[in-house]
Amino acid sequence: MISAQELRAAQAYAADRLAAAGIVLTGAERDAIEVADFGLSRLREFGLMLLVYVNTDRYCAKELVLYPDQTCPEHRHPPFEGTPGKEETFRCRSGSVRLRVAGEERVLAPGEQHTIPPDTLHSFQAGPAGAVVTEFSSASRDELDVFSDPDVRRQTVVG
Amino acid sequence: MISAQELRAAQAYAADRLAAAGIVLTGAERDAIEVADFGLSRLREFGLMLLVYVNTDRYCAKELVLYPDQTCPEHRHPPFEGTPGKEETFRCRSGSVRLRVAGEERVLAPGEQHTIPPDTLHSFQAGPAGAVVTEFSSASRDELDVFSDPDVRRQTVVG
Repeated sequence: MISAQELRAAQAYAADRLAAAGIVLTGAERDAIEVADFGLSRLREFGLMLLVYVNTDRYCAKELVLYPDQTCPEHRHPPFEGTPGKEETFRCRSGSVRLRVAGEERVLAPGEQHTIPPDTLHSFQAGPAGAVVTEFSSASRDELDVFSDPDVRRQTVVG
Repeated sequence: MISAQELRAAQAYAADRLAAAGIVLTGAERDAIEVADFGLSRLREFGLMLLVYVNTDRYCAKELVLYPDQTCPEHRHPPFEGTPGKEETFRCRSGSVRLRVAGEERVLAPGEQHTIPPDTLHSFQAGPAGAVVTEFSSASRDELDVFSDPDVRRQTVVG
């Protein structure tokens, strides 16, 4: 659970970091920035902010914004509807992000990218300056993500 | 056909416009910027510069850069390998771009986007300040594109 104040502050932080990275959003997009605490109620440590540009039955594109040192917990994107599950490419835009994929670590600086195969355990953590990461992928079904921590809930409750 | 000098100038222009839009590239990516004159040998009028970030069997992401008033000629992305053909979303990053899709026109300003269905005739033209456009799509097979002008050749010859 996060407070309404945490939600607003996280949306404002994400909009500011995206603008600083040269990424122009419409007003409706700024209002639609999603804040995920993964049900862990420690947003500054575990979570991320995200904006979905497009998500068709075939492909998806999003911006991910992380607070300094914030971690998106380990998860995988399982097969669905006859597909092998979501395949995704992370491209760092600003700050830095440490990716852990199937036990291997790499740090992406701005302009660097890495592709994560479907149904493969991964997590990522922003560096000390936070991170803006563009995600290109096949179709996204966030609600199907399988997290390693049984306490994770993908739906964010604002209370 | 374009000259080696036109090729280098177009790559430098595209790298400069991407940098001005806040988009960080690696050195290898700057060298890999593709210049397309569509075989019409009038690059400043007809053509575009493009950088492919990723193109898997499932999704693709590119940056497109256009000179002021430059036009990408009308074409469609036909079905292939059991798919309905490439579906693509254009998101304007800087400048402006006029999209013509199946006879309908719209102008995208920075932060605005539009999705073009598969196998649908479309063309686009940059505004007077040129354009940087991010393209999110299903898998891309540029060599299969069908152009309305029979003089178009997708392969650029540098001579």
